[in-house]
Amino acid sequence: MSTIATTPEPPYYAVIFTSQRTEGERGYAKVAERMAELAAQQPGYLGMETARGADGFGITVSYWSSLEAISAWKRVGEHQAAQEAGKNTWYSDYHLRISRVERAYGLGT
Amino acid sequence: MSTIATTPEPPYYAVIFTSQRTEGERGYAKVAERMAELAAQQPGYLGMETARGADGFGITVSYWSSLEAISAWKRVGEHQAAQEAGKNTWYSDYHLRISRVERAYGLGT
Repeated sequence: MSTIATTPEPPYYAVIFTSQRTEGERGYAKVAERMAELAAQQPGYLGMETARGADGFGITVSYWSSLEAISAWKRVGEHQAAQEAGKNTWYSDYHLRISRVERAYGLGT
Repeated sequence: MSTIATTPEPPYYAVIFTSQRTEGERGYAKVAERMAELAAQQPGYLGMETARGADGFGITVSYWSSLEAISAWKRVGEHQAAQEAGKNTWYSDYHLRISRVERAYGLGT
């Protein structure tokens, strides 16, 4: 179960990863869990939020302290293998957007 | 069913709205649908993507051409009423982040 990430005061960076899953499990859940674990170990990682509906459409947002941290995470070997499997097996479509968070507020603020 | 938004070349803006739904429907779906419809009519609207899991945790990302467009949408009367109902009735927690998309790519790019 995902929860709302506790992030510092802006500015920081958000990677918005939107995807449509193919049919069938195909080993996805295990690797997704491992990637979440591995991302959390990277320098500059601030948090992650994820949601996927019954229709297979999902959004994962990961938060980072810098663009350099995002680039470094993209290049991690085990993550690159997962990216390839994503393209070839798990996603029928996806879009990735790298953005700079400028303002943020929550319930009661 | 949500699909991947077709957005222009960056830069543009993304509003990342992360939320945890309370238990029960409470008139939520109808208003959520109406807000998606109303947002799409606003100046500067570029698109929207949304996903919510069975656990009630959801992410909606809306895309806009400028910060001014985001501010104007926040002030639309019918939207303000929905924001109040969100705080009081539909969400046990939420976080809203306004970000500037700097880079984007999809499957096959």
